[in-house]
Amino acid sequence: MSYTVEIIGVGTELLLGNTVNTDAQDVSQVLCDLGFNVHFHTVVGDNAERLNNAVDIAKKRADIIITTGGLGPTYDDLTKQTLAEAFGKKLIFNEDVANQIMAFFAKRLPTMKMTENNLQQAQLPEGCIIFDNGVGTAPGCAFEAEGKHILMLPGPPRECRAMLKSCVEPYLKKLSEAEIHSHNIHIFGLGESAVEENLRELMQSLKNPTLAPYAKDGEVMLRLTAKARTKEEAETLMSPVLAKVHEVLGDIIYGIDTHSLEHTVFKLLTEHNLTVSAAESCTGGLLSKRLTDIPGISNVFKGSIVAYNKQSKSLLLGVSPELIKEKHAVSREVALAMADGARLKFDSDIGIAITGIAGPESDHSGQPPGTVFVALTTKDHSFCRTPHLFHDRERIRIGCANHALDMIRRLLTGVNVEL
Amino acid sequence: MSYTVEIIGVGTELLLGNTVNTDAQDVSQVLCDLGFNVHFHTVVGDNAERLNNAVDIAKKRADIIITTGGLGPTYDDLTKQTLAEAFGKKLIFNEDVANQIMAFFAKRLPTMKMTENNLQQAQLPEGCIIFDNGVGTAPGCAFEAEGKHILMLPGPPRECRAMLKSCVEPYLKKLSEAEIHSHNIHIFGLGESAVEENLRELMQSLKNPTLAPYAKDGEVMLRLTAKARTKEEAETLMSPVLAKVHEVLGDIIYGIDTHSLEHTVFKLLTEHNLTVSAAESCTGGLLSKRLTDIPGISNVFKGSIVAYNKQSKSLLLGVSPELIKEKHAVSREVALAMADGARLKFDSDIGIAITGIAGPESDHSGQPPGTVFVALTTKDHSFCRTPHLFHDRERIRIGCANHALDMIRRLLTGVNVEL
Repeated sequence: MSYTVEIIGVGTELLLGNTVNTDAQDVSQVLCDLGFNVHFHTVVGDNAERLNNAVDIAKKRADIIITTGGLGPTYDDLTKQTLAEAFGKKLIFNEDVANQIMAFFAKRLPTMKMTENNLQQAQLPEGCIIFDNGVGTAPGCAFEAEGKHILMLPGPPRECRAMLKSCVEPYLKKLSEAEIHSHNIHIFGLGESAVEENLRELMQSLKNPTLAPYAKDGEVMLRLTAKARTKEEAETLMSPVLAKVHEVLGDIIYGIDTHSLEHTVFKLLTEHNLTVSAAESCTGGLLSKRLTDIPGISNVFKGSIVAYNKQSKSLLLGVSPELIKEKHAVSREVALAMADGARLKFDSDIGIAITGIAGPESDHSGQPPGTVFVALTTKDHSFCRTPHLFHDRERIRIGCANHALDMIRRLLTGVNVEL
Repeated sequence: MSYTVEIIGVGTELLLGNTVNTDAQDVSQVLCDLGFNVHFHTVVGDNAERLNNAVDIAKKRADIIITTGGLGPTYDDLTKQTLAEAFGKKLIFNEDVANQIMAFFAKRLPTMKMTENNLQQAQLPEGCIIFDNGVGTAPGCAFEAEGKHILMLPGPPRECRAMLKSCVEPYLKKLSEAEIHSHNIHIFGLGESAVEENLRELMQSLKNPTLAPYAKDGEVMLRLTAKARTKEEAETLMSPVLAKVHEVLGDIIYGIDTHSLEHTVFKLLTEHNLTVSAAESCTGGLLSKRLTDIPGISNVFKGSIVAYNKQSKSLLLGVSPELIKEKHAVSREVALAMADGARLKFDSDIGIAITGIAGPESDHSGQPPGTVFVALTTKDHSFCRTPHLFHDRERIRIGCANHALDMIRRLLTGVNVEL
C-alpha cells in the first residue's frame, strides 16, 4: 500500500510569521525519499481546541500523522496531551526518560537549575516507541491507533532534523515497500514556460517516472522522480526519459544532480587546470560572491575588480578613457577590454567581465535597464553576449552573473559560447 | 469584529520539500501587523480534489482565505479555477489583463515568444478586484463570497511580497477598525538573547504597544507595534518606549525604520560627501555586492578589489609580500595595508578591508574558521576590529560584511569605531 502523510506543525510563532516552517520541508524531504506521499501540511498555534480540530481532519485524510513542535516543558506545549487524547491513549510517566532529562541537565547545563516542569517531558502516550532526542531534552515518540501511525517530533529544527535521521527514517523504512529515486536536471538559457512547452507532451504522458519543472533565479530545474522496488529499477525507468530530455534540450542542460552553475564552473576549471578572474561593473561583486561561496575555489578563482565607476575602469582595469568616451562604458568594446584587464592584472587564463545597466533608472546615455554586455577573453579568443534581461535590479544582476558563469561553462565544454 | 485567517499554500514542490513555505511567513507577518488572527496554514499540492478539500475546511474556520501559488500559466496551476468554482464564480477573460501580459512580453522579453498558455493568466473570477503583479505576469485577485474574503497571490516569493505591500495591505486595511503602526529598531553589535535580557522587564510589562525581537543574519531587530484609532495616537503610545529602548541600548542602534546597515552607510556617506572603496579577501565580493544592491550608490562607493589569493593582495593592492610573509595574510597588519591599498588605488576617502578564514577548513597556519580582521583607514586614522565569528562559512562571511559596514557607520556618527 502507498501511505499518505499529513505533517502538522504546532507553534504560534509560525502563525505570527516569526519563524518559517523549515521542519515541514525537512520532514517532507525524508518522507518523499522513502516513497511516502505527503498530501498536506498544516500549521496550528499552541491552542488545544484548534490542534484537536487539525488532528480530526488529518485522521480522515492521512495514514500517517507527523507533528513537529509543542513537546517542550512549558504550559503551552500541548502536542502530546492533545494527540494522546484524540486517539484515546493515556500519558504515562516514564522513569527512564525522566532520568535521561536529569542527566542531560547535570551534564550539559550544570549552571542551570532544572525546573520541575522539565519532567513533564517524561509523560508519554502509553505503549509508544520513544524517539531519543540527541541534541535537546524533549523526546519524540510514535504510536499506532485506529489504523494510523502517529509520530511526534520536537520543533527546534536542529532537534527535528537529528531525530528524523536517527529515529524516523528507520521507523518508516519498515513501513515502506517502494523506494523513490530522482534526478535534478539543471538548465540555463530557456525560460520555464518555454521548457515546459518543449516537453509538455512528454511530461503529460508520464506516470512513473514523473517530470516537473521548477524556476528559480533565472534558471529552470526539471525534477525526474521514479518509484520502484530498487534503485536499479528506478534508474531503468528514468534512463529513457533522461535521454529524451537531453535530446530535446541539448546543451542548455548544464548539469544533472549538480548544486549550481558556479559549482559546475568550479568543477570544469579544476578539471582543465585553468584560472579565472573577473571585472564587474553593474553586478558589483555578485559574481565573485557566488564563486567564493564555494570552499576551495581559490585554486581556480584569483579575484575580481569591482569597477563601479568609469574612473575605476581605467584606473584599475587599464581600459582606455578614450575607448570609454567613444564607445560608452556599457558597450561590447568596453566589456571586452575589461575582461582583458582582469585577465592581465590577475594573470589568469580566463577573464570575464560584466558591464550593464541594472536599473531601476536608465543611465545618462538613455540605454534602458537590462542593457548588459558580458565578455569572456582568453589569450586567443574573445566572446561577448548581450542577453536581454528584465524585471528588477536584483534579477538583472543575477541574470548577468548567470550568463557569465554559463559562458565559462560553454567555453570549457566546447560548445558555442555566445549563444 | 476580529477576522480570522487561513493561508493556503498551493504547490507540490512544498510537499516534496523542494522549497520552504516562506510565503506563509511573509503573509502572516503582514496580517499580524494589521491585527488579523492567523489561525491555520495549510499546504496542498497541485491537485484539484485536495485543494477543494482544503478550501472546504478553510471556509468553515476562517473569515479570510489567502492562497499563495498556482496562478501561473501551466496546466497544473489550478488555484483560480478551484477557488472560483468552490465559491460559485465563473472565470472571465479579462482583456486589460491580457493586454498587460502581452505588453509585458513585448517590452521585457522582446526576443522571447509569448506562448498561448500565458493568456490563461488573464482568466479571472467574475467581479474580482485585480491585484497587479509588478514583478511577474500572473496577476492576483480578491473577491467576496458567502461572507468570506478570498485573496489569491502568486507563489514566487518576490512576486508575493511585492503584491502584499502594494495590494493586500491596502485591501485589508479597509477591513480593519483599528490602525496598526510600528517602528523597526535595527541593532548591530549584541546578540538576540542579550538584547532580550536587557529589555525583558520592559517587554513583559507592555500590552500596547508591544515590543518583540527578531534575529537575522547576525543582526537583531526590535519591532515596536501599537494599535490605535489614529497614527498620532499610536505614536503617542510608542514614543516613551522608543526613548526607553534608546536609553538601554545606546549606539548599538543603527537605525529606526531603515532598510539595512548598508542603507544607513549609504545615507551617511552621502550626507558627509565622502567616498569609500573596499578590499575583500574571505568575503569575496559580498560586501561590494551588498553595497551595490542599492541604486545610486556609485556616487559614494568607488569599487572593490577582491583579492582571493596572496599574490593578488600584493599585485592589486600593493601589500608588500614581506609583510604577508612576516605577519600572515590573515592579520591586523595585512588588513590595515589592504584598506590603505584600496583607498589609494581607488582614490577614495575611506578604505575598508576584510581578511579572514571563512571555513569550513582552517588555513595552513592553523587559525580556526571565524578568525577575521576588519580594517578601516582614512588619510588620518586607522582602525581594526577582530570580531569573534562562528557557525558556518556563510554566517562568518555575512558577519564580516556587517562589521565592515558598522565601522563605517560608527566613524561617520562619531562613536567608538573599534568597539
